[in-house]
Amino acid sequence: MVSQPILKIIKNALAEDIGTGDITTQATVCGKKKGRALAIAKDDFVVAGVDVFTETFKCLDKNIKVKKIINDGSRVKKGALIAEVSGSLSGILKAERVSLNLFQRMSGIATLTAKYVEAVRGFKAVILDTRKTVPNLRILDKMAVRLGGGTNHRIGLYDGVLIKDNHIEAAGGITAAVNAQRKELPRKMKIEVETKNLTEVKEALRCGVDIIMLDNMSVPVMKKAVALVAGQALIEASGNVSLQNVARIAAIGVDYISVGELTHSVRAADISLKIKAC
Amino acid sequence: MVSQPILKIIKNALAEDIGTGDITTQATVCGKKKGRALAIAKDDFVVAGVDVFTETFKCLDKNIKVKKIINDGSRVKKGALIAEVSGSLSGILKAERVSLNLFQRMSGIATLTAKYVEAVRGFKAVILDTRKTVPNLRILDKMAVRLGGGTNHRIGLYDGVLIKDNHIEAAGGITAAVNAQRKELPRKMKIEVETKNLTEVKEALRCGVDIIMLDNMSVPVMKKAVALVAGQALIEASGNVSLQNVARIAAIGVDYISVGELTHSVRAADISLKIKAC
Amino acid sequence: MVSQPILKIIKNALAEDIGTGDITTQATVCGKKKGRALAIAKDDFVVAGVDVFTETFKCLDKNIKVKKIINDGSRVKKGALIAEVSGSLSGILKAERVSLNLFQRMSGIATLTAKYVEAVRGFKAVILDTRKTVPNLRILDKMAVRLGGGTNHRIGLYDGVLIKDNHIEAAGGITAAVNAQRKELPRKMKIEVETKNLTEVKEALRCGVDIIMLDNMSVPVMKKAVALVAGQALIEASGNVSLQNVARIAAIGVDYISVGELTHSVRAADISLKIKAC
Amino acid sequence: MVSQPILKIIKNALAEDIGTGDITTQATVCGKKKGRALAIAKDDFVVAGVDVFTETFKCLDKNIKVKKIINDGSRVKKGALIAEVSGSLSGILKAERVSLNLFQRMSGIATLTAKYVEAVRGFKAVILDTRKTVPNLRILDKMAVRLGGGTNHRIGLYDGVLIKDNHIEAAGGITAAVNAQRKELPRKMKIEVETKNLTEVKEALRCGVDIIMLDNMSVPVMKKAVALVAGQALIEASGNVSLQNVARIAAIGVDYISVGELTHSVRAADISLKIKAC
Amino acid sequence: MVSQPILKIIKNALAEDIGTGDITTQATVCGKKKGRALAIAKDDFVVAGVDVFTETFKCLDKNIKVKKIINDGSRVKKGALIAEVSGSLSGILKAERVSLNLFQRMSGIATLTAKYVEAVRGFKAVILDTRKTVPNLRILDKMAVRLGGGTNHRIGLYDGVLIKDNHIEAAGGITAAVNAQRKELPRKMKIEVETKNLTEVKEALRCGVDIIMLDNMSVPVMKKAVALVAGQALIEASGNVSLQNVARIAAIGVDYISVGELTHSVRAADISLKIKAC
Amino acid sequence: MVSQPILKIIKNALAEDIGTGDITTQATVCGKKKGRALAIAKDDFVVAGVDVFTETFKCLDKNIKVKKIINDGSRVKKGALIAEVSGSLSGILKAERVSLNLFQRMSGIATLTAKYVEAVRGFKAVILDTRKTVPNLRILDKMAVRLGGGTNHRIGLYDGVLIKDNHIEAAGGITAAVNAQRKELPRKMKIEVETKNLTEVKEALRCGVDIIMLDNMSVPVMKKAVALVAGQALIEASGNVSLQNVARIAAIGVDYISVGELTHSVRAADISLKIKAC
Repeated sequence: MVSQPILKIIKNALAEDIGTGDITTQATVCGKKKGRALAIAKDDFVVAGVDVFTETFKCLDKNIKVKKIINDGSRVKKGALIAEVSGSLSGILKAERVSLNLFQRMSGIATLTAKYVEAVRGFKAVILDTRKTVPNLRILDKMAVRLGGGTNHRIGLYDGVLIKDNHIEAAGGITAAVNAQRKELPRKMKIEVETKNLTEVKEALRCGVDIIMLDNMSVPVMKKAVALVAGQALIEASGNVSLQNVARIAAIGVDYISVGELTHSVRAADISLKIKAC
Repeated sequence: MVSQPILKIIKNALAEDIGTGDITTQATVCGKKKGRALAIAKDDFVVAGVDVFTETFKCLDKNIKVKKIINDGSRVKKGALIAEVSGSLSGILKAERVSLNLFQRMSGIATLTAKYVEAVRGFKAVILDTRKTVPNLRILDKMAVRLGGGTNHRIGLYDGVLIKDNHIEAAGGITAAVNAQRKELPRKMKIEVETKNLTEVKEALRCGVDIIMLDNMSVPVMKKAVALVAGQALIEASGNVSLQNVARIAAIGVDYISVGELTHSVRAADISLKIKAC
Repeated sequence: MVSQPILKIIKNALAEDIGTGDITTQATVCGKKKGRALAIAKDDFVVAGVDVFTETFKCLDKNIKVKKIINDGSRVKKGALIAEVSGSLSGILKAERVSLNLFQRMSGIATLTAKYVEAVRGFKAVILDTRKTVPNLRILDKMAVRLGGGTNHRIGLYDGVLIKDNHIEAAGGITAAVNAQRKELPRKMKIEVETKNLTEVKEALRCGVDIIMLDNMSVPVMKKAVALVAGQALIEASGNVSLQNVARIAAIGVDYISVGELTHSVRAADISLKIKAC
Repeated sequence: MVSQPILKIIKNALAEDIGTGDITTQATVCGKKKGRALAIAKDDFVVAGVDVFTETFKCLDKNIKVKKIINDGSRVKKGALIAEVSGSLSGILKAERVSLNLFQRMSGIATLTAKYVEAVRGFKAVILDTRKTVPNLRILDKMAVRLGGGTNHRIGLYDGVLIKDNHIEAAGGITAAVNAQRKELPRKMKIEVETKNLTEVKEALRCGVDIIMLDNMSVPVMKKAVALVAGQALIEASGNVSLQNVARIAAIGVDYISVGELTHSVRAADISLKIKAC
Repeated sequence: MVSQPILKIIKNALAEDIGTGDITTQATVCGKKKGRALAIAKDDFVVAGVDVFTETFKCLDKNIKVKKIINDGSRVKKGALIAEVSGSLSGILKAERVSLNLFQRMSGIATLTAKYVEAVRGFKAVILDTRKTVPNLRILDKMAVRLGGGTNHRIGLYDGVLIKDNHIEAAGGITAAVNAQRKELPRKMKIEVETKNLTEVKEALRCGVDIIMLDNMSVPVMKKAVALVAGQALIEASGNVSLQNVARIAAIGVDYISVGELTHSVRAADISLKIKAC
Repeated sequence: MVSQPILKIIKNALAEDIGTGDITTQATVCGKKKGRALAIAKDDFVVAGVDVFTETFKCLDKNIKVKKIINDGSRVKKGALIAEVSGSLSGILKAERVSLNLFQRMSGIATLTAKYVEAVRGFKAVILDTRKTVPNLRILDKMAVRLGGGTNHRIGLYDGVLIKDNHIEAAGGITAAVNAQRKELPRKMKIEVETKNLTEVKEALRCGVDIIMLDNMSVPVMKKAVALVAGQALIEASGNVSLQNVARIAAIGVDYISVGELTHSVRAADISLKIKAC
């Protein structure tokens, strides 16, 4: 149901929490007791991670069953029943916190992403995430962004070229950097270059790059950049994007808007697990 | 400088980001070029994780040097220089994002914790974290709470006893649960019991538990609970705590106030790395 | 049936023994041949680890069945049938040694523990283990102690506070050490202090510690210590405990007696596996 | 100083004991304090594992120094100074228990082995260990046997052929088993066959095996077997060997005597670590 | 000197070969003896992997020194001295086979790649590798291709889009597949589509894909395809490429030629290590 | 079906190829679509690794079924159907490359081995592999050799003694080396010594070694060596063996001929996977 790398995250997270044993549950809950638990929304949000939530219980005890009521990507209202867990009560209790920690973070990311996506509806701009994810949870953070309607930027340093200011300075200018990129590693990837001003935009255009990132530019400057580029490259707006200004940026006509906040400053969605012994 | 488990987090995070190689840096930055980078505060916050930040660079390339200007636990103002990194420019660029992701999250946690600690200054209550941490980063999340002036609750299910509503229900009541805990696992740990109302507080008291958690009670009810307990057990307030109401809760005279928000809804502190080739 | 950390011990132990292949069994036993094996007690002892024994075979080949005749914690007489294994004969042969190595050690620990527990019957003292376990088998060693009727002391350095002579000396005395402990790490754990004489017992008492360890004291001195403490703290006797003197120590009225021998000097219980091809 | 697999055992053992942190040492011992510790024999024994002891401290903190006074394989008297540790006091305290657990077990094995070796002095028989080692510590158990003057039997199922009763039964007799072994896996290894009586010894001889194991035979029967074999194969005595009867078995003229007790029933050597802050 | 993932390959390879110990070297070579070893070419080839060769020795014993005489990417003649190893003789002997196994394979790949690159000199076509690498050695195989003058295709399934016949059939045609790709995963990657005939080439062109792969087409058909595409997309020739026909394919004017043989059918370069005790 | 170490190779290989996701298949193939795939021989070869091929799919998705038509060790003709895979189409596509990479290499090794075995038919010589295997795939390389009719030499440095020229030089001659081997590590293994000329053969004979390796000798010299040895030791021919000269070497009457080429210079067997959506 989930991929091997996600399974590994779940296993490690259970090990981190349970360590040498859940000393409370072992003492107070008979191992044979069965139970049922309801995952209930305590707020309005976009559901993301219900499969991860499910797999966490199965990973702890493969006989625990989880019935999914709401699918990933759906919006729920406060009070909605999202999933129903049944099986060994002690197993459910041991996995409860980890399953919720994962589920609430992912749903929090999806919910915030959905707000950004909603804000730019009608414009061509797609909302991109960044590499500002929580270390060792990137695949889940990125999955949550997709479930919220966003689009993934490169996953890591290995699957996309993004020539930033530091690379440009080290290479001795945009042209030199782009040439070095094309020569040293001529893999079949698109080349994106970060620019800080219109002069740099022009240079990037002359180099024939595939995507131009407008980094931390004001809305008026970005407007001029879009005019300059005139469809000869894709354009990504980046830096200081907020729910307040994202629509204005989209209105300029950029292709992508990347938002670090989606994953670096997440408010966990509020989900509770109501457990009942049978 | 950092413990083995933290080192492992850093290594995994670098592997997650770099994967089969930083294809941009490899192409545009000569491997022998040296550089310097300044970690600068772009907001006011409490610094947490400067050693983790440091170790991330050393883990990528042990010849990179990091000079720490500000110590963990200190408050910085916007614009402050926190640390200075020097060595292989390509190494610095490859580790940049991971080092910041870790550092910004930890500083974000410390900063929020410090606000709570400040809010209850003058009262005996200490601010506790919870197990609502990001999976597989718990030691860093908990370390950041301490650096913000907070206090760690148990680290996982293995190093503290907390009998919650579900355990109580499974065991058949508070008294039965506490007796089971004492009999089945008579390790030398304090026993804490979660209570939902004054009747439960009284039962917990009769059982002679060490700590009573008041879960999701209103301030007036908590006041009565404190009076009932009258120093015969330690008291922890939990549930729906916010910066708005934490001082009022502390004023009641509880010993501990636990706050899930400290780690489940973190706003990353804003830190930039200004890189210069030498 | 067994937890993830125990499963990992089993897997590693099988890998350690089998390595690149059981070259004898591969050559002499047809892979399709079925067999049955009986685990039989060759001495009187307390059974501990029958689930670990079982899981070792299943870990090698999930189609091997193990029928448990005797439960963990039961005493068996020489000649008793403990469990019956059936399935792939070559699988049984490959896992035989590892399953017995684990089972015999655990049963040896449980048997010795049971002798100590029996020796103090009628007194309030409970028998504790120590951290003198075989490296990387601690969870099994500790489980075996419980199955023998003993009680686990802390599992590691992380889940219990024990201020020993070296900590006291480093901190500058018992009072300083206890204060440092309370201040620096005010988690909700009981504090235990090791004392070497009555002067230290008094100081520990004044600090209000939860548990006082009497380390390597003679029986008459321990008697005086118990009188001094007079129920204001729990008392643990430690050092030079043997089956010969443990009853005399228990008679003094201490709460805990910790015994390193339980796990550092174990005689394996004698269990044989009689295998029959079908 | 130690091989990679041993280093891994040490690392895992430290992680097992320290887990998320030594909460006592962190609170009571200043991280910058230096200390010295003396490893002192509290009994007479054969030293084994002083390098493993040393590496445990270095593994915790590479700046800790260990000065070895006594080499592995030497006999020490009660009171002897074996090694001197110096460096970070908190580091020494955190690694103390693990370093001793390893060192004491290894020295216990070496000491018992040395008694067996001494008992057969003057005879050609060499003392062999078995695979009855503590799971996941086999390389250390086997190393300790060598340091006690014993000789290692095969390390695992992969590096030696030993056709036991179960293989013989599965293959349909000794001749069939030996033929199968030679045919199916004609690697250049010696073939050893377990025999239970003189008839089997004769059959093994006829097969031209390299080594014949006499399993659980009485001394008179073993004498006849030695006469039968008459130097045409090497002979290993196995089963029910004790310090009481080992010399009598050696006197028969066997080549090898294997002793399970060497590693399955070990009494830890008594070693203390006296720590002093500087 | 080498990245973490490469270091892990080396460590695992040493563990695979040495296992529980090099029983020959341990017995015959004194641990303190020093030695020198010369890596000498026994044939003409392109050197690739000298750093991996070097790191293998250092990984076994960090005090072994390796002096590199020839750099990666250089051609050597039979008899050339490539590197000089000095340090612990037993360490050199233990690492010898693994270091050569890695070095010889990489040099074999580079040498074959260089022949292909040479064969297409003067044409614009670049030689690409494929994912037909030896499992778990892909980064080394791909590095060797680069050192031979070749260019890496995508590293794995995660860092490049290649819509093959099976994807096309599953999606219901090229257009459907390309649309699905653009919609479901609109990351900023180039899209490559495999085509089997001119009809498919036309459809791919209409979809505006970035790269068109001509799979297993004859030279005349490929010529027509190049004419059809007329610079509107990049073109990759694939399938049944050999040293015999590669120039003819290049002459057609394709941009890329991918060659599975580079990594799936490698002849190890012949390198010997002449060892001398000092 | 396959052992734990092989399973680990497969899992790592899948992780290596799939990384953070097969971005093409995820976008173009509906997760619920079923498919069938036929593994077909595109050349004549000896099949080796069909179980490894099978397990690769099951490892990716345990619900994929593989029906084996041809068993390991069988010869197939071009066009033969080897196995049939059915289940999730996207699962089949994701595992396709890895399963073939493993299967094709193993079949390539078996095919080459079978040619050598065929070439020496009628002589007593058995064909041995060497340690010149691909790092971290040794168990598969060695398994393929067996499936091709060859015989495994030692698996690693740990399960066989081979005293080579460097050991001899370090020890101060053959006699010294053999004595050291017998004294330092008197395990019950056969001793093999490498010799470069007849003088060394004589010395090895005098030492009573079990196996003498004739390294890089000419056929006439080897003939003299065989005459000298006259059945007093087993003989292994090694060095510069090719399909051209192997029969001549076998005709001399040696017991073993070891061939590095079997695993260091492998041509992958040509196997295709024809996939059909259902």
